[in-house]
Amino acid sequence: MMRLRRIPLTQIICMGLLVAVARADEGMWLLDRLPEAELREKFGFEPRPDWIEHVRRSCVRVGAGGSASFVSANGLLMTNHHVASDMIADLSNEANDYMKSGFYARTLAEELKCPQTELSVLMSTEDVTARVNSGVTPELSAADAQALRRKAMAEIEKEARTRTGLTPEVVELYHGARYHLYLSKRYTDVRLVFAPEAGIAFFGGDLDNFEYPRYNLDVTFLRAYEDGKPARTEHYLKWSAAGPKEGELTFIAGHPARTQRLYTVEHLEFLRDVHIPLVLSAYNQREVALLQFMGRSPEIKRIATEDLLGIQNGRKAYGGILEGLLDEQLLAQKRKAQQELIDFINADPRRKAAYGGAHRMLAEAIDRCRPDYPAYMMTTNRRTSLGRLYGVALKLVQAAAERARPDGERLDEYRDASLPSLELDLFSEAPIHDALEELRLSDGLVRLGRVLGGSHPVVKTALAGRDARSRAAELLTGCTLKDVAVRRKLYEGGSSAIAECDDPMIRLARELDPLVRKYRAKYEDEFEGVEKEAYGRIAAALFELHGDRVYPDATFTLRLSYGTVAGYDEPDRAVPAMTTYRGLYKLAAQRDNQPPYELPARWRERKDKLDLNVPFNFVCTNDIIGGNSGSPIFNRDGEIVGIVFDGNIHGLVWDFQFDMKRARAVGVHSRAIIDALEKIYDASPLVAEILGR
Amino acid sequence: MMRLRRIPLTQIICMGLLVAVARADEGMWLLDRLPEAELREKFGFEPRPDWIEHVRRSCVRVGAGGSASFVSANGLLMTNHHVASDMIADLSNEANDYMKSGFYARTLAEELKCPQTELSVLMSTEDVTARVNSGVTPELSAADAQALRRKAMAEIEKEARTRTGLTPEVVELYHGARYHLYLSKRYTDVRLVFAPEAGIAFFGGDLDNFEYPRYNLDVTFLRAYEDGKPARTEHYLKWSAAGPKEGELTFIAGHPARTQRLYTVEHLEFLRDVHIPLVLSAYNQREVALLQFMGRSPEIKRIATEDLLGIQNGRKAYGGILEGLLDEQLLAQKRKAQQELIDFINADPRRKAAYGGAHRMLAEAIDRCRPDYPAYMMTTNRRTSLGRLYGVALKLVQAAAERARPDGERLDEYRDASLPSLELDLFSEAPIHDALEELRLSDGLVRLGRVLGGSHPVVKTALAGRDARSRAAELLTGCTLKDVAVRRKLYEGGSSAIAECDDPMIRLARELDPLVRKYRAKYEDEFEGVEKEAYGRIAAALFELHGDRVYPDATFTLRLSYGTVAGYDEPDRAVPAMTTYRGLYKLAAQRDNQPPYELPARWRERKDKLDLNVPFNFVCTNDIIGGNSGSPIFNRDGEIVGIVFDGNIHGLVWDFQFDMKRARAVGVHSRAIIDALEKIYDASPLVAEILGR
Repeated sequence: MMRLRRIPLTQIICMGLLVAVARADEGMWLLDRLPEAELREKFGFEPRPDWIEHVRRSCVRVGAGGSASFVSANGLLMTNHHVASDMIADLSNEANDYMKSGFYARTLAEELKCPQTELSVLMSTEDVTARVNSGVTPELSAADAQALRRKAMAEIEKEARTRTGLTPEVVELYHGARYHLYLSKRYTDVRLVFAPEAGIAFFGGDLDNFEYPRYNLDVTFLRAYEDGKPARTEHYLKWSAAGPKEGELTFIAGHPARTQRLYTVEHLEFLRDVHIPLVLSAYNQREVALLQFMGRSPEIKRIATEDLLGIQNGRKAYGGILEGLLDEQLLAQKRKAQQELIDFINADPRRKAAYGGAHRMLAEAIDRCRPDYPAYMMTTNRRTSLGRLYGVALKLVQAAAERARPDGERLDEYRDASLPSLELDLFSEAPIHDALEELRLSDGLVRLGRVLGGSHPVVKTALAGRDARSRAAELLTGCTLKDVAVRRKLYEGGSSAIAECDDPMIRLARELDPLVRKYRAKYEDEFEGVEKEAYGRIAAALFELHGDRVYPDATFTLRLSYGTVAGYDEPDRAVPAMTTYRGLYKLAAQRDNQPPYELPARWRERKDKLDLNVPFNFVCTNDIIGGNSGSPIFNRDGEIVGIVFDGNIHGLVWDFQFDMKRARAVGVHSRAIIDALEKIYDASPLVAEILGR
Repeated sequence: MMRLRRIPLTQIICMGLLVAVARADEGMWLLDRLPEAELREKFGFEPRPDWIEHVRRSCVRVGAGGSASFVSANGLLMTNHHVASDMIADLSNEANDYMKSGFYARTLAEELKCPQTELSVLMSTEDVTARVNSGVTPELSAADAQALRRKAMAEIEKEARTRTGLTPEVVELYHGARYHLYLSKRYTDVRLVFAPEAGIAFFGGDLDNFEYPRYNLDVTFLRAYEDGKPARTEHYLKWSAAGPKEGELTFIAGHPARTQRLYTVEHLEFLRDVHIPLVLSAYNQREVALLQFMGRSPEIKRIATEDLLGIQNGRKAYGGILEGLLDEQLLAQKRKAQQELIDFINADPRRKAAYGGAHRMLAEAIDRCRPDYPAYMMTTNRRTSLGRLYGVALKLVQAAAERARPDGERLDEYRDASLPSLELDLFSEAPIHDALEELRLSDGLVRLGRVLGGSHPVVKTALAGRDARSRAAELLTGCTLKDVAVRRKLYEGGSSAIAECDDPMIRLARELDPLVRKYRAKYEDEFEGVEKEAYGRIAAALFELHGDRVYPDATFTLRLSYGTVAGYDEPDRAVPAMTTYRGLYKLAAQRDNQPPYELPARWRERKDKLDLNVPFNFVCTNDIIGGNSGSPIFNRDGEIVGIVFDGNIHGLVWDFQFDMKRARAVGVHSRAIIDALEKIYDASPLVAEILGR
């Protein structure tokens, strides 16, 4: 399943702001800059402004990692089960395990409020490039220029918030060629309406993840509330009961998180040889530790399942990317394109003066950042954290210091515009399970030592002269941060409250914070500064080379992609575009109905009610990536024909190169969703709301 | 379970030949150098020469990784199920899965011949130090001196073989302070007599591995044959039907593979920061890959189980060692002892001249070998190989080159004395499963890239410009080496046959061999040479400091340890020395009889026949390590009271430091074995043979 591979916000903002040249059905297009000529020529389709506006306001961004869409005027929205599974797991307990049993609220009163959830809808965009760059002169150093831009961005956001009451964000596009002010409406009261059993949402589990053919009902319905009542949502996507046909034009609108399509060869080699191996090694260690841990009892298994699914998904995704990057043929294409661009730049003295040296500059910065990169990763990346309570402690410690500074000088995630999200996270009542925290912490401590070596200052500070297990026990025994009131008090008390606090986890965060900041500053100053400058030049040169057939690299902002429903060929077989319910039952039988191919009881009992020829999942050529999970797939009339939940294994290379020979987006068919709701789940009221009956 | 952590023979021979100073029940003693004073003082026991000779000749070394003992005059021998599980798995197929069902041959005719198995019994030892060192003068370089010694060793072995017909091996002890000629009797016709179900042999699986209390019937009976008839074994250990009592003196004789008790702090830091992280990262990746793979079908699960068990065991063992080495308190003890030794050396000009500088010299060599160590590990270590067929191909390629050289100039594993083992391995008929080979190869190729980076010559050579999956398919499709006759022909054809062979796997091995040799030579020359010299000095200084209360570090040669049956304390509870059958059934019930706590059907059905108070497993303070698996535990009368199958988690640090506060050896009780054979397996004839009735 195409979970967003979680990356710190700083990375999303700073690393992926590139441009790319479109080919075939390629492109994650900004809604105000669609490839109109291509759509007209290939499909005879011309998107009208009201069509675009309607799509934009029907699309929803979920928390820090997924997409959704409104499907009724009463705030009903559809996303993937795997996007909502954090919420579903948080709402579950030993007695009511909704991950296992599924959930359906027949009435509004039965809908369950999800802790720690944030949705947002993009209401308007505005180009603020000139204002962000005002005062920035060529004489300024990169760091000074960036500081000036940050200050301007903070002011623009502050002013916009006061003026509109909406949530502002200045987003950087085309690697700084453009800055847009995005104004979003936020929903924080979100309730669970319907979720199927994890067994059918993720049928085939990790084994079939990123594979095709597939048979997953990876769908969940939520409802946005305002002032305690269902939100009134004027814009929502209507439903196509028939669903898509083979060859039909499909649109996907959602929030692809990050692509690196313009990365230089040297940068890709750095990902291949340094970054991805670190990530994979962290994933592999944690997956093994979790599998061991989950053998202890069914309850332990339940509480750790979410962590496991996330880890397995990431491991498979990054493993696929690594395999792609190890394929010399793919890198050879990149190398050729890069040389062509360098030749184009050098062929003209003006271009050479404006864009020259970018590739070399970047390669040198990569070499410089390499030695301390593991320490940066281990202290900053969410994938390598020491558990939820340590995460809370570090945020409290950093927030105290950062909030005392002017907005423009803060670390990104502590700027005023980001504080609502920070607070939502810090004060979430989502349950924290002692045993799971202990595992995360002790495994994380060992991982620090394994990656950085036992003499590294980070490791010595973290272990404090103890063995990992004893240290984890010591830190957790005295930790008071499970209590949200304690967190709130520390947050409100600021620097003095933090300084006086003798909670062992706060103490650890206080001791590690200077190191965390040191490696982060080093990376951001030495690498990201150069990266920004270099990709700015590369992007500009590409603009000049290719004209305006370009889209910005994905940045977790709203994008639209187009394509068609189409199967593909594997070396040994043709893979049809669609699967059916019949295929689902056949596969379950082949695998003796054993996990992960075990059908939930309801699906076994009600098989006869289903028309087994109904299409279940399908693939299309639309250009998507992690973060697109939960995006609606719709037709030219703006009617939902399905929902994206995955890409196939060939699509993993889409991070850095689009290809439509075999790579595909994978979705659930709209008719299958309706059939399941009616015949398996007796959810006629929900169906009526969706179909507008 | 305490599987031998597999290491190439070169490492066993070259890395672990140190001495250590004994404390408490510490010590893996040579049989001709037992701690007589201690045994007398502590236990009033004086081992007579005939007692020692009888023990020596009753003990058996299994293949390249375990221990066993003769238990009847007709070649019957006992080892662990997990030591024999390679053989049991090789004898199994889809129709008869003896791992799952267990196996019992009621008659000689029913005994099954194990492919690729080699047992040996140490018949005599002789000190050949003077002869090995003859001609070695202080003027010679370390490399020249070593070449001279190797030549002498080869000659000694050759001569001994001709003279005695036995299998000779010159073993290095006390890091070269002593060389002993070991003459062994080899058995290659070994048959399976009895194996329980894996479900009871490894009850609790990976979850309970290295834990205590335990409930494992980790025992298997084999029979050595000579000339097609059961071997007549004059020396064998009699059986104690009553088994051991708490506090009773216990001996363990077996083949501990490798300890590093004298390693310097810097060397331990190298293990902690470089070697073990590489190993663990390889294990984690493979474990995750195998678990995915095994979900494909029950048959795939069956064929991959052996690989998985080995990987999980190694991962847990190395993980425990890493945790131990990350414990600053433990390293602080080492640091203190090291400083005392350095002070002792420096306090006297003669000692300083003889032993000084060893620690510094070693630290510098470690720093030098660090950059290319990953390439050495990835190309030489068995844990990081590219599968069985590649292993066969590389051996064939290297054997062709090496056998053309004089014996003394060859790589160790191709010396004449090693050829019988090499040939046994090369020409083994053990089944090779296509799907498993493909997994090992493609996963191994990705691991190469992940560890070494995509631009490394080893990776580029191995992938040959393809992606890992396509490359694996290409290599396996054309590979002819599954056919043992093909291997034999290539082996016999020597260099010209290899040069002309166009098997893709042989081609790959031919292309990689220069790189394999380059990194190995670099490591052996730059590191092992210095290591040998440095530890030689350190060992000699320690002899001088501590007198003769020393034993050599483990080297997979026969050793005797002593101790007592004793429980221990965990922070939160006292752990009794023994478990019972009652405890087994209780635990199975607590875990709902689900894997890995699922009792085999026979055990569920025949519960009533057992006396539930019979002791099942027990712990003792004897000093053991990987390779000791299958060692007999016996009393002062030389009667078997149990069999070693594991150490507890605290015993993992025994690799580099003995401690008897909580660390324990874990064994199966002799009475439990008899009871199970009689009451669960109806194996009265086997019991009669064991008890000499």
